Amino acid sequence: MTPRIEKDFLGTMEIPKDVYYGIQTMRAKENFPITGLTVDPELIRALAIVKKSAAQANAATGSLQQDIAEAIIQAATEIIDGLWHEQFVVDPIQGGAGTSLNMNANEVIANRALEILGHDKGNASIISPNSHVNMAQSTNDAFPTAIHLSTVTLLIELLNVMEHMVSVFEQKAEQFDHIIKMGRTHLQDAVPIRLGQEFLAYAKVLRRDMKRIKQTKEDLYEINLGATAIGTYLNADEAYIVSAVDFVKQNTGLPFVACENHVDGTQNTDIYTEVSGALKICMLNMSKICNDLRLMASGPKTGFAEILLPERQPGSSIMPGKVNPVMLEVINQIAFQVVGNDATISMASEAGQFELNVMEPVLVFNLLQSIRIMTNGFEAFTEYCLQGIQANEEVLRANVERSIGVITAIAPHVGYEIASKLAREALETNESVRSLCLKYGYFTEEEINVVLDPFRMTTLQKKQ
Amino acid sequence: MTPRIEKDFLGTMEIPKDVYYGIQTMRAKENFPITGLTVDPELIRALAIVKKSAAQANAATGSLQQDIAEAIIQAATEIIDGLWHEQFVVDPIQGGAGTSLNMNANEVIANRALEILGHDKGNASIISPNSHVNMAQSTNDAFPTAIHLSTVTLLIELLNVMEHMVSVFEQKAEQFDHIIKMGRTHLQDAVPIRLGQEFLAYAKVLRRDMKRIKQTKEDLYEINLGATAIGTYLNADEAYIVSAVDFVKQNTGLPFVACENHVDGTQNTDIYTEVSGALKICMLNMSKICNDLRLMASGPKTGFAEILLPERQPGSSIMPGKVNPVMLEVINQIAFQVVGNDATISMASEAGQFELNVMEPVLVFNLLQSIRIMTNGFEAFTEYCLQGIQANEEVLRANVERSIGVITAIAPHVGYEIASKLAREALETNESVRSLCLKYGYFTEEEINVVLDPFRMTTLQKKQ
Amino acid sequence: MTPRIEKDFLGTMEIPKDVYYGIQTMRAKENFPITGLTVDPELIRALAIVKKSAAQANAATGSLQQDIAEAIIQAATEIIDGLWHEQFVVDPIQGGAGTSLNMNANEVIANRALEILGHDKGNASIISPNSHVNMAQSTNDAFPTAIHLSTVTLLIELLNVMEHMVSVFEQKAEQFDHIIKMGRTHLQDAVPIRLGQEFLAYAKVLRRDMKRIKQTKEDLYEINLGATAIGTYLNADEAYIVSAVDFVKQNTGLPFVACENHVDGTQNTDIYTEVSGALKICMLNMSKICNDLRLMASGPKTGFAEILLPERQPGSSIMPGKVNPVMLEVINQIAFQVVGNDATISMASEAGQFELNVMEPVLVFNLLQSIRIMTNGFEAFTEYCLQGIQANEEVLRANVERSIGVITAIAPHVGYEIASKLAREALETNESVRSLCLKYGYFTEEEINVVLDPFRMTTLQKKQ
Amino acid sequence: MTPRIEKDFLGTMEIPKDVYYGIQTMRAKENFPITGLTVDPELIRALAIVKKSAAQANAATGSLQQDIAEAIIQAATEIIDGLWHEQFVVDPIQGGAGTSLNMNANEVIANRALEILGHDKGNASIISPNSHVNMAQSTNDAFPTAIHLSTVTLLIELLNVMEHMVSVFEQKAEQFDHIIKMGRTHLQDAVPIRLGQEFLAYAKVLRRDMKRIKQTKEDLYEINLGATAIGTYLNADEAYIVSAVDFVKQNTGLPFVACENHVDGTQNTDIYTEVSGALKICMLNMSKICNDLRLMASGPKTGFAEILLPERQPGSSIMPGKVNPVMLEVINQIAFQVVGNDATISMASEAGQFELNVMEPVLVFNLLQSIRIMTNGFEAFTEYCLQGIQANEEVLRANVERSIGVITAIAPHVGYEIASKLAREALETNESVRSLCLKYGYFTEEEINVVLDPFRMTTLQKKQ
Repeated sequence: MTPRIEKDFLGTMEIPKDVYYGIQTMRAKENFPITGLTVDPELIRALAIVKKSAAQANAATGSLQQDIAEAIIQAATEIIDGLWHEQFVVDPIQGGAGTSLNMNANEVIANRALEILGHDKGNASIISPNSHVNMAQSTNDAFPTAIHLSTVTLLIELLNVMEHMVSVFEQKAEQFDHIIKMGRTHLQDAVPIRLGQEFLAYAKVLRRDMKRIKQTKEDLYEINLGATAIGTYLNADEAYIVSAVDFVKQNTGLPFVACENHVDGTQNTDIYTEVSGALKICMLNMSKICNDLRLMASGPKTGFAEILLPERQPGSSIMPGKVNPVMLEVINQIAFQVVGNDATISMASEAGQFELNVMEPVLVFNLLQSIRIMTNGFEAFTEYCLQGIQANEEVLRANVERSIGVITAIAPHVGYEIASKLAREALETNESVRSLCLKYGYFTEEEINVVLDPFRMTTLQKKQ
Repeated sequence: MTPRIEKDFLGTMEIPKDVYYGIQTMRAKENFPITGLTVDPELIRALAIVKKSAAQANAATGSLQQDIAEAIIQAATEIIDGLWHEQFVVDPIQGGAGTSLNMNANEVIANRALEILGHDKGNASIISPNSHVNMAQSTNDAFPTAIHLSTVTLLIELLNVMEHMVSVFEQKAEQFDHIIKMGRTHLQDAVPIRLGQEFLAYAKVLRRDMKRIKQTKEDLYEINLGATAIGTYLNADEAYIVSAVDFVKQNTGLPFVACENHVDGTQNTDIYTEVSGALKICMLNMSKICNDLRLMASGPKTGFAEILLPERQPGSSIMPGKVNPVMLEVINQIAFQVVGNDATISMASEAGQFELNVMEPVLVFNLLQSIRIMTNGFEAFTEYCLQGIQANEEVLRANVERSIGVITAIAPHVGYEIASKLAREALETNESVRSLCLKYGYFTEEEINVVLDPFRMTTLQKKQ
Repeated sequence: MTPRIEKDFLGTMEIPKDVYYGIQTMRAKENFPITGLTVDPELIRALAIVKKSAAQANAATGSLQQDIAEAIIQAATEIIDGLWHEQFVVDPIQGGAGTSLNMNANEVIANRALEILGHDKGNASIISPNSHVNMAQSTNDAFPTAIHLSTVTLLIELLNVMEHMVSVFEQKAEQFDHIIKMGRTHLQDAVPIRLGQEFLAYAKVLRRDMKRIKQTKEDLYEINLGATAIGTYLNADEAYIVSAVDFVKQNTGLPFVACENHVDGTQNTDIYTEVSGALKICMLNMSKICNDLRLMASGPKTGFAEILLPERQPGSSIMPGKVNPVMLEVINQIAFQVVGNDATISMASEAGQFELNVMEPVLVFNLLQSIRIMTNGFEAFTEYCLQGIQANEEVLRANVERSIGVITAIAPHVGYEIASKLAREALETNESVRSLCLKYGYFTEEEINVVLDPFRMTTLQKKQ
Repeated sequence: MTPRIEKDFLGTMEIPKDVYYGIQTMRAKENFPITGLTVDPELIRALAIVKKSAAQANAATGSLQQDIAEAIIQAATEIIDGLWHEQFVVDPIQGGAGTSLNMNANEVIANRALEILGHDKGNASIISPNSHVNMAQSTNDAFPTAIHLSTVTLLIELLNVMEHMVSVFEQKAEQFDHIIKMGRTHLQDAVPIRLGQEFLAYAKVLRRDMKRIKQTKEDLYEINLGATAIGTYLNADEAYIVSAVDFVKQNTGLPFVACENHVDGTQNTDIYTEVSGALKICMLNMSKICNDLRLMASGPKTGFAEILLPERQPGSSIMPGKVNPVMLEVINQIAFQVVGNDATISMASEAGQFELNVMEPVLVFNLLQSIRIMTNGFEAFTEYCLQGIQANEEVLRANVERSIGVITAIAPHVGYEIASKLAREALETNESVRSLCLKYGYFTEEEINVVLDPFRMTTLQKKQ
């Protein structure tokens, strides 16, 4: 097939006849052979929603001819429905603040719209990627709006998965609520706790993470569509802006609103670092939780062996019968990835200059990746690991029984100094705290039974 | 003076007679000669408030003898008022999750209380640092509570300083609202904007930063006092806890409440990473703003020279007459410090294990430093720089006049493709866009005056 | 097609008949649906080289039957040549320290070898993925060895690309050596420099980066093949180890040697952080360089306009004629990505425990990505941008002429204090330094011509 | 005392009569009330060495009058010897690329030199801080040279401390060489190792760290003294530069040389990030090692209890008798601090622009802090913890005996698949691997004694 020739103010290029993208996409493809990856499909969908909404608004305000608008809307809808994604060929890491991706969308939609109307691809005089598809838009508002849309969409999915995960933590907390266990601080024996209390503490911190993530979602609902080039609305008017944001709301079913100040909304990327920050905190917590679980599951013979994890795969190519906590390890790794992504996002955010942050492509690449891998990881972790965790009650109880930490309950009765001496004696002689207390006559048997009751130690007492 | 001899379960030590700390502080001082710095005074005050509140509660519930309680309360009050801080000699970076600092406080207060009651220092049988001053407490609740108190207090100060700084940005926005300026994206000429719009965008993002910081403050009001060792309330009872938290509220005048789940509140440090995250985002924004200002102030002869900064100090030891934007550069540096501190805080937070995060000392060291240097930096920046920024109106206007970016306003009238050609011609021939538009007859003079009016370009239009 | 049934000690699974991987890969695929990406092809190749070398060594020492060895060697060679890569289906982020990827390789090779020998896939009694393909290996030596191999291979490519890039910087330095330019510190006019000196400084720091990267390559040549499970050589013997490392050397043509201490070589990942650290430093430098170039290229009308970049693509979907420094911006973004990757790698490295670092998968995922995107980015940057940079000599010269910074050359003659006064007068009156010096009679015209010669100011003088 | 009045080109200020610093220091003190800390004494000393060396060189080349030179040299020598450090009052975090600190040094030296010569402080017409003390220097070469000097000096101290620490690790490796222990991967039982092998692996990686740190030291020996403002040697001549560097060498006894390219040496900070990178890698390794040790020391009753640490201080204010691994925890915290400092240093390094990196103050503040706290921490850790670590041989041996991981040694004899079955049976029935092997007749008793000998498993075998 003979290629078609396309032209921009820098010259001409041959475009393979069958592709829907055009000269600017071609240039970008050549310029940025960086990761070899493609843009997140949710970001492509979001950009198509922006294009559709803009065309609807431009039609509504009379700026865009009806038939052209309809063709553009249809083309964009097809992309929203999952078609033509293979025509989005620009690298996620690209110079130019997203112009290449925006033009990729403009060109694919223009050419598909031309096709719908029975014209040849590339005929910009009928439908121009810039003048028609991009009408009243700039990359500087279309791209950030698409980032907001895709981020919100993926966050909603993440929060659903988290809701389920946390509820399983809560179920486990209930299931394990009666199981006494030795608490540890500094990896040293402390005082008794119930296994259920530990799982509940995990659930609690994760609920706070959900709250934090939800909060960022609210800020994302403010979009800068209509800002055009630098937030001064050049080439967009009030009626269009109101209408375009309205169509975004309608096309997504989500409560998007126009941001309060479009100059601010165009140049600042703090909302993204805010999202990434919330994700990072969540993963720091998850990593701590998984470390705890890996420690409790350590063994089978020479570790803590306090809980049992579902066995998911042979753990060694050389050591027969070995099984490893792989579903926990992968969460740790996701945590490290998300922390690294946050560092990238932070640096990208700091690098904004004047009316625009041109580092947005690498920023959104990392942001969406963080959300994706958390969602995927949490889902797998919940189903393949968390659900099936079992307590090794025997070991847990035995640990409490032989521990010395229960001495703490003695201290208010005998004083910290005497209690310290008893503790050392217990450690050196291997005699139990209970037996020492009785031997030295600090308590009667009846008293000691109350004071050293481990379950009692784990609950709030009225005045003692 | 003969030293006194003190004893703990690891042995005895000689303590200089005049010091108020005791054997455990001595051990810690020897163990941790790390930074050579001292703990933030606000953290010392906060710990004294905890000790005072606990003693008040223990007295109220009848656990602590009245005269001892009163002496402890007086000693703690003296520390709150700024006395005895030189007796806090443990290094801010210390092993042991804050036990050394907590014991430093317990020992200083015990000895000062003994002195108040007319006894010799070190007489633990009358007032024991552990049994009396630390009664119904553990480091694991006393220390985090003190972190919350000191962090909130410093955040309040920071927010006050920010309020002033942002209001000055807003005044500048108003002052500069009429000044037209060339907007830039990618450091390339874009379309006109008003200098006031830029300053307003700075104010807007900083207002969001204030909102984020305020939000974290709310979470800090939940304290785990009463949790004791691991959050199971061992050796504390309900009446005491209610009372202790109440006294904290009373002693600070701030709305502290008991946290919902004390096991969670004792082991998780996500609130601190949340605070640090909000500070980091703020500094990424401030760094971007200062970069903008430094660029606009670049010159005097070969730079942008769009604004003038107050001259604060000679800028070079060798280049006579040189003046540098030092107040901006120091904010950039504070930003880098806060980003680094956040990395430290994040790693420390991730390293929690089971019922406690023993890395809290390094965490709080960095957290309080971040708040302090931001507060100090913002105050100096506002007074010594921001207030006195002046616009170089002549340069700003001239830039707009000779720029080509205004072509964007032409595009909707002639199409993107023709506009592109005009732009290139203007660039190559140095002829103005205005003159080219007239030459080619795209507009009458009357029309072009409207279309190319730069002020008009910076404001939202009704339907064009 | 009916699937085949495979079995391991955890149970049985159905495997699609046509796939070459087996039950353990299937389990891993199910367990880790994290990124949706595939493992870097160079890592797959490297792992195949390990498998081939091990089989060659096992054959040589008589442990592996000749025909089986040959089939394994052939299968591995096919993978090295690029075949069967689509059979590597495990996610790059995976729990289990690489066991899943290693088993994926073992299974694909076993099944392909079976096929070569005319047997059915899955017949582990003839060729077992564990007993034969993985003979005398553990994931714990096979995987790190493969990381070393692939990293070295990609680093060599990177260094080649860098050599070219730096040599172009050096050519530019020569080309621009005669062009005088105003030096800047603090973004304020300093003293003259030659544009060539600036490009040479860029080349110099990048040469140091190359040296640093090369140095890490040397350390990578030490591999732990033969360490097996934890570095104690269990199930490997001396003859095999010597032979296997030798075959790696032969199969790669690179000077690999056995590491000195295999327990160390198995558990520590410092070499990877070292590589990543060197990459990070390089990108911090490149980011600074690109920032400089973007500033020098700022304009076209209201910026520095000191250099001209090749125009690579239209820079805006809305602003006609705009061209942006996209090839520089993409390098900045790569820098941020590499910095973030280094954070991930650092946390993963710190998380090693005892005899192994199970976080290696996420570590190598980020490490190879960093090298890849740097290689790709540098190549594009050199060809599409650096080569074509031109100096705007006129602007550069004019800047020097009207600047005041040349006052510095006056200072040693009149003293810093008088020079300062002159500088201020020049700034306020717009009179040139030269004219003021003559006016006040500090120099004759002849003298001033020498003292204020900008070229002279940029070169080392013998005693003045 | 009436203050003296000093003057610079921005105006006049009152200076307290007794202070040795002057107007520029006063301005800087007012401008930068950031951390409240003072500059590292080693950096002050280093700057004094620079001033002394420059004065010596200026005297030698005849540029500086002999008596003035001598007074300056004496004043600088006093600072090197530890005097007048309290006169260095500028904040470590300061705008202006170190000009404030450099001028602080220039002013203190000028005034002390005036005093030595019997003149009043502040008499710049006799000795000017700029014209005499700073002669042929700029902050841009004096400050980086001082950074190099102080960093090298502190690194030498660090390396000495590390040498001792690593040698103790090596002694421990020898001491524990005969002690068998269960190896762990994924926190799951793997195969036997000797405790000495673990400590040797720690020593090995730390030896590599020392090598890396040493390497950076070599690069630091290149100094840019003589570069003056931007590396073009303006106001310095060849004879002076050669001489000044020579005097630095002489005054320090260290092999400093002039850097190859002074433009490069003035603007690039990659050497500092290189040093920080090496420190970071070291601390990631140390953190891992301390985590291992903390795990092995976990207990006393419910943990691994494989090693015993020296008891350094009571571990709890509430739990009597508790002792925590505080010396390990503090190393973890130092690690997090150093990682954070590296993030700060990296961002500061990236922020260089054109001929200078104005963020050097925050960079060197963090760099020197990292070295200091590592030195202090390692010294304390070695003396108070590492030296006294003891093995709990009984527990270690018992662990090996009841573990199933030894099955790996069986696998080559019976095949991976059968070995897997045996492993599972052993786990489920609690029967030992040894007994199962005999029961099923896979080995004679004599054979099994050899195959299951744990010591044999930890050493390299000739052909089996």
